[in-house]
Amino acid sequence: MSYRHLVGGVAVLGAVAAGTFAVAALPAQAGPAQADAAQVRAGRTVVGAVGGRGWPVDHVLSNRSLTRATQELVKSAKRRGDQRVTMVIMERSGVIRLVVRTRKAGPQTYESAKRKAYTAVAFGQPTSALTGNETIKQIPGTLVLPGGVPILHKGFPIAGIGVGGAPDGRIDEAIATDVRAAMAH
Amino acid sequence: MSYRHLVGGVAVLGAVAAGTFAVAALPAQAGPAQADAAQVRAGRTVVGAVGGRGWPVDHVLSNRSLTRATQELVKSAKRRGDQRVTMVIMERSGVIRLVVRTRKAGPQTYESAKRKAYTAVAFGQPTSALTGNETIKQIPGTLVLPGGVPILHKGFPIAGIGVGGAPDGRIDEAIATDVRAAMAH
Amino acid sequence: MSYRHLVGGVAVLGAVAAGTFAVAALPAQAGPAQADAAQVRAGRTVVGAVGGRGWPVDHVLSNRSLTRATQELVKSAKRRGDQRVTMVIMERSGVIRLVVRTRKAGPQTYESAKRKAYTAVAFGQPTSALTGNETIKQIPGTLVLPGGVPILHKGFPIAGIGVGGAPDGRIDEAIATDVRAAMAH
Amino acid sequence: MSYRHLVGGVAVLGAVAAGTFAVAALPAQAGPAQADAAQVRAGRTVVGAVGGRGWPVDHVLSNRSLTRATQELVKSAKRRGDQRVTMVIMERSGVIRLVVRTRKAGPQTYESAKRKAYTAVAFGQPTSALTGNETIKQIPGTLVLPGGVPILHKGFPIAGIGVGGAPDGRIDEAIATDVRAAMAH
Amino acid sequence: MSYRHLVGGVAVLGAVAAGTFAVAALPAQAGPAQADAAQVRAGRTVVGAVGGRGWPVDHVLSNRSLTRATQELVKSAKRRGDQRVTMVIMERSGVIRLVVRTRKAGPQTYESAKRKAYTAVAFGQPTSALTGNETIKQIPGTLVLPGGVPILHKGFPIAGIGVGGAPDGRIDEAIATDVRAAMAH
Amino acid sequence: MSYRHLVGGVAVLGAVAAGTFAVAALPAQAGPAQADAAQVRAGRTVVGAVGGRGWPVDHVLSNRSLTRATQELVKSAKRRGDQRVTMVIMERSGVIRLVVRTRKAGPQTYESAKRKAYTAVAFGQPTSALTGNETIKQIPGTLVLPGGVPILHKGFPIAGIGVGGAPDGRIDEAIATDVRAAMAH
Amino acid sequence: MSYRHLVGGVAVLGAVAAGTFAVAALPAQAGPAQADAAQVRAGRTVVGAVGGRGWPVDHVLSNRSLTRATQELVKSAKRRGDQRVTMVIMERSGVIRLVVRTRKAGPQTYESAKRKAYTAVAFGQPTSALTGNETIKQIPGTLVLPGGVPILHKGFPIAGIGVGGAPDGRIDEAIATDVRAAMAH
Amino acid sequence: MSYRHLVGGVAVLGAVAAGTFAVAALPAQAGPAQADAAQVRAGRTVVGAVGGRGWPVDHVLSNRSLTRATQELVKSAKRRGDQRVTMVIMERSGVIRLVVRTRKAGPQTYESAKRKAYTAVAFGQPTSALTGNETIKQIPGTLVLPGGVPILHKGFPIAGIGVGGAPDGRIDEAIATDVRAAMAH
Repeated sequence: MSYRHLVGGVAVLGAVAAGTFAVAALPAQAGPAQADAAQVRAGRTVVGAVGGRGWPVDHVLSNRSLTRATQELVKSAKRRGDQRVTMVIMERSGVIRLVVRTRKAGPQTYESAKRKAYTAVAFGQPTSALTGNETIKQIPGTLVLPGGVPILHKGFPIAGIGVGGAPDGRIDEAIATDVRAAMAH
Repeated sequence: MSYRHLVGGVAVLGAVAAGTFAVAALPAQAGPAQADAAQVRAGRTVVGAVGGRGWPVDHVLSNRSLTRATQELVKSAKRRGDQRVTMVIMERSGVIRLVVRTRKAGPQTYESAKRKAYTAVAFGQPTSALTGNETIKQIPGTLVLPGGVPILHKGFPIAGIGVGGAPDGRIDEAIATDVRAAMAH
Repeated sequence: MSYRHLVGGVAVLGAVAAGTFAVAALPAQAGPAQADAAQVRAGRTVVGAVGGRGWPVDHVLSNRSLTRATQELVKSAKRRGDQRVTMVIMERSGVIRLVVRTRKAGPQTYESAKRKAYTAVAFGQPTSALTGNETIKQIPGTLVLPGGVPILHKGFPIAGIGVGGAPDGRIDEAIATDVRAAMAH
Repeated sequence: MSYRHLVGGVAVLGAVAAGTFAVAALPAQAGPAQADAAQVRAGRTVVGAVGGRGWPVDHVLSNRSLTRATQELVKSAKRRGDQRVTMVIMERSGVIRLVVRTRKAGPQTYESAKRKAYTAVAFGQPTSALTGNETIKQIPGTLVLPGGVPILHKGFPIAGIGVGGAPDGRIDEAIATDVRAAMAH
Repeated sequence: MSYRHLVGGVAVLGAVAAGTFAVAALPAQAGPAQADAAQVRAGRTVVGAVGGRGWPVDHVLSNRSLTRATQELVKSAKRRGDQRVTMVIMERSGVIRLVVRTRKAGPQTYESAKRKAYTAVAFGQPTSALTGNETIKQIPGTLVLPGGVPILHKGFPIAGIGVGGAPDGRIDEAIATDVRAAMAH
Repeated sequence: MSYRHLVGGVAVLGAVAAGTFAVAALPAQAGPAQADAAQVRAGRTVVGAVGGRGWPVDHVLSNRSLTRATQELVKSAKRRGDQRVTMVIMERSGVIRLVVRTRKAGPQTYESAKRKAYTAVAFGQPTSALTGNETIKQIPGTLVLPGGVPILHKGFPIAGIGVGGAPDGRIDEAIATDVRAAMAH
Repeated sequence: MSYRHLVGGVAVLGAVAAGTFAVAALPAQAGPAQADAAQVRAGRTVVGAVGGRGWPVDHVLSNRSLTRATQELVKSAKRRGDQRVTMVIMERSGVIRLVVRTRKAGPQTYESAKRKAYTAVAFGQPTSALTGNETIKQIPGTLVLPGGVPILHKGFPIAGIGVGGAPDGRIDEAIATDVRAAMAH
Repeated sequence: MSYRHLVGGVAVLGAVAAGTFAVAALPAQAGPAQADAAQVRAGRTVVGAVGGRGWPVDHVLSNRSLTRATQELVKSAKRRGDQRVTMVIMERSGVIRLVVRTRKAGPQTYESAKRKAYTAVAFGQPTSALTGNETIKQIPGTLVLPGGVPILHKGFPIAGIGVGGAPDGRIDEAIATDVRAAMAH
């Protein structure tokens, strides 16, 4: 498997088992039965199941978690060196649920934070784990600098938290991680 | 004074005294001295004064007020009929300091809320006081529906709070007013 | 209640009972208890409930319903006079799940269809019921011409179907209604 | 039939016969057979027919017609009072095939011309015939001022020519008409 | 001549003589000779003439005039009641040569000023003379509120000055007029 | 021939014979006769020919093929590991005929899929064949990651199918290939 | 002089003599007299001179040259292998005076052609001379692939011609060069 | 510390002391007390302090400094070799306070100048000090070519001046530096 073509890798979403992958790469040999089996192993069917009749459901963030996120962002940014940062929280659909821009945050921080949130929720990993990824870098809207963390539900990314503005991306990511912990309380 | 040409009117910013206005409308007669006098009456010079040397200052929102705003938005929206709304807080510079989108808020709520915040901070009045204003309606980016309230500092608008998504704009504006009260605590 | 300020009216989402509205309009008298009661009467709490712990859920469209929608759009457009139309299906989050542009559809049809879908899912009604609404017309992204229908789940709009391109908007809306019926099969 | 809902009317594309229209407005009674019959009467099937196998075809403009269009635009604009205009020619797909901006044409002329071309090809009529149409005015991208003319092939609009910049829209439309005549040579 | 179709009228550019206009409106009768005659009367040929060989020329603003414009904008805004305004100067080509945003100018002032400058240079008149013009209002990018004045060279608009932000558009236009006078020194 | 300057190479469109290319590179020696000969060898004249009178034609997709494409996209995405992907089908003109976003597809999938479709139809090759192409990478709107396949008619690209969202681009491209096969039935 | 910082180099505009450059790099030593001298040597003062009073002038393209450009584009594209290209001609101000899109030109050709024209007029050189320039590549809106040529007036770029769509950029540039020659007739 | 992750480095804002940084990089050990101490050492609390009650303040540019900036830009550009440049001055909030485009400046100069101003105010350093920074290059809106300088107030960037258009970025930066000096008079 060449590096260039691989966006997130087998481990990205924790859902494509090695066997499945081979199947996908060799379409002529891929039967529905095998794919179904892989699906079950990955535990996806449960998440997306449509119960009997009616419409399927997706997991989203509660309003209360947004209150906790704002509170923690302000505290964590102060605690970690009085950082002037912006935070964006984006759901899997691409909807932005929360933006907080602290005082004196630079003009670039909104766009940075949004792109880190976007990248984290799109690929299901912290952006610090993607900084060497030349493939993702080509995809419009992404930013592969540290500062983005995904919010996972049963291993699937339902939202991303992006923080931008600290002089080192690792500070941004530490703040994003603090916020994620606060949201789960 | 014809209605069409008046954007906000004499009362908008509480700063153009009747005498000043005549001066402005009759440029040939307007001397610097008169203008200065009007300025002093309006109390503007103090806000914008540059003390001796150095750069002038503008008032902005504190980070803590954003925490309180998020908290109150969630509470007020629930209390006032479980409204699915989005709130945007914009400073006079046009910078967005806070966006909170509650669960199930419609796709139009971000843009509505942003425009109400923009209109309130641009013209220094609640948008409910501007709904009949055909002049403002022509200016790009405005929305003259209830739901926007300005945050004033010594009578001058330093920020606007916009809320959109409730079935009646007056509910949006009641929520925005709740948030403003909470920010000032 | 003045017409101008009312976006969708009491009937829009079927959720703000008369009593609730008075509460909302008179914030000083609105207690949480009353609001909660109104909420229960409107049946909203059930939809948005977070079961025990974890994240809340939103209803979305299944993939199979998109297959049925494409199939019916093509058939219905042909059956109703060989209309050259575009259809857009948008979820409540604003995500576009499906776009189908039939042959020779005009250049304006994508934007028309998108805005009708947006308006229908935002306000929970067919756009034909909103054509006289001057308030909604002011909100960016809307289009109050016939051709948009909402997909409701327990009375709440989870998606909108917009069709544009027929010489009469009522034909557009008839096609959108056909598609909605087919998706529910 | 209410005026508001009618975008272009029965006459717009010359394709929906009165009988067809009633059918469309009464979906329950519309059978495929009737629709097919109407289609044949309108002569549409021929245009869109897929010969045997393979893909269907659409009519577009030849390159030579663009040369003639540029030449005539420059001449006609000069002849009709040395007008400073911009011309845009857009095909039914929305593709812009030609833009010519004469010397000293104002900054608004490109957008005006583009929208007139768009409106003419979308609705199959000169824009001078649509100036009173409040429905079309609501559709994004349109401009219902004189200056746009469609290029028809067997009654169906395959392109639009838009001209903007003359002090009276009727001059713009006279130039557009000159260009259309030159293209057909 | 119906009002709706007339963008700027015979007087707009001071170039279409009554006789020319009739010619333009009756294309069949318009001969090149007549058009040329009208052109000469309007004095246009001189401006656009290409001397022998080489490229024609357009008039633009000098750099020094921009210095004077900035200086006067700041002084005039202060003198006329300490207005918080933004000024935009745009050339006929659409190029923005100068933007000055005074302290505390509202977020809407840039867009207002730009559109007034655009409208003034496009139609060759002060925007205060266009406030009742429903035709121009439909053209994208225009704003028919007072505050824009054209800079004319031999009667032809080579640039526009737009000012936005004062509580009354007439103050904006008085400032723009002051700036224009200063530029010509 | 340096690599950098070559967008697609001699083989891209299968139409520039070696002799033609030399001609093109040496304009002074290129006579119309030679060019015509090359054209005939490449078989292009037939496709673009204008029969006697009337307008030339371009090949586009039938509506039925879109129904089959939606159906196969949903099936193939499920079969190949329950991929959360978005598919875009774009014609040569740039018109988007179909967008299908499967459940839980990430926020980046629409843009990825659109760019792959765009790249495939622009250069007439699968995007997997272009991943090393630094020249194409510079052209705005392209994405040289696997997942895009062209639909060819007599060797000329009339549309592109782009798929994005699978953890490996080769899965995206396998799905796109499945869809293409289904459309041709 | 490091490569990275140099946008166009001493030779770009043919106007910064070696001596001037040293002056520029050593501001403390740069006196107006020296600069003026350099200016005269470069012959710039003449072009930008303001004759006595009134406004300065810039050179632009004549309308007739656009007619010749369209004609030659169509012919040259056919002659050089029946290329499906788009051509854009942009003046120094950034105004687009001409766009011609030949039949079957790909969706990327407009943007490519526009960027090549932009790059050629911005830096005063054929884009084929800039393909290795990493500095220019960073500037938004540029495209450093062959296909753009400047139109010079006394050594200064007054417009750029950009062509995109041929399989090799050198064919694009040969066509652009043909067009430039035709415009000068 | 890897190069890639570091946006501006310890020196960027002159505010994160070495001790603080270690703290930030090791969140588990970071206590509020230590952060507060670092904050005091960096002198930040003073700038952002909210005096008793009321809103905090940010430093912005005076109107008079804009007059001086325009004047110096025109003079410096002439003195340094008659450069055709554009200058943009942007405050920390992202607000553009001044744009001056000198005669014959190329079409790319506005965007270049804006991005240099943006980069300088975002990272608090001249852009010439950032030209090798691959991390900043990835952040949307930045341009790491010489020509941008920050305006600092007590070591914190309150605005950025960007200049673009000279053949060597160092000339651009020399002009920007001249302007900064003039503003401080």
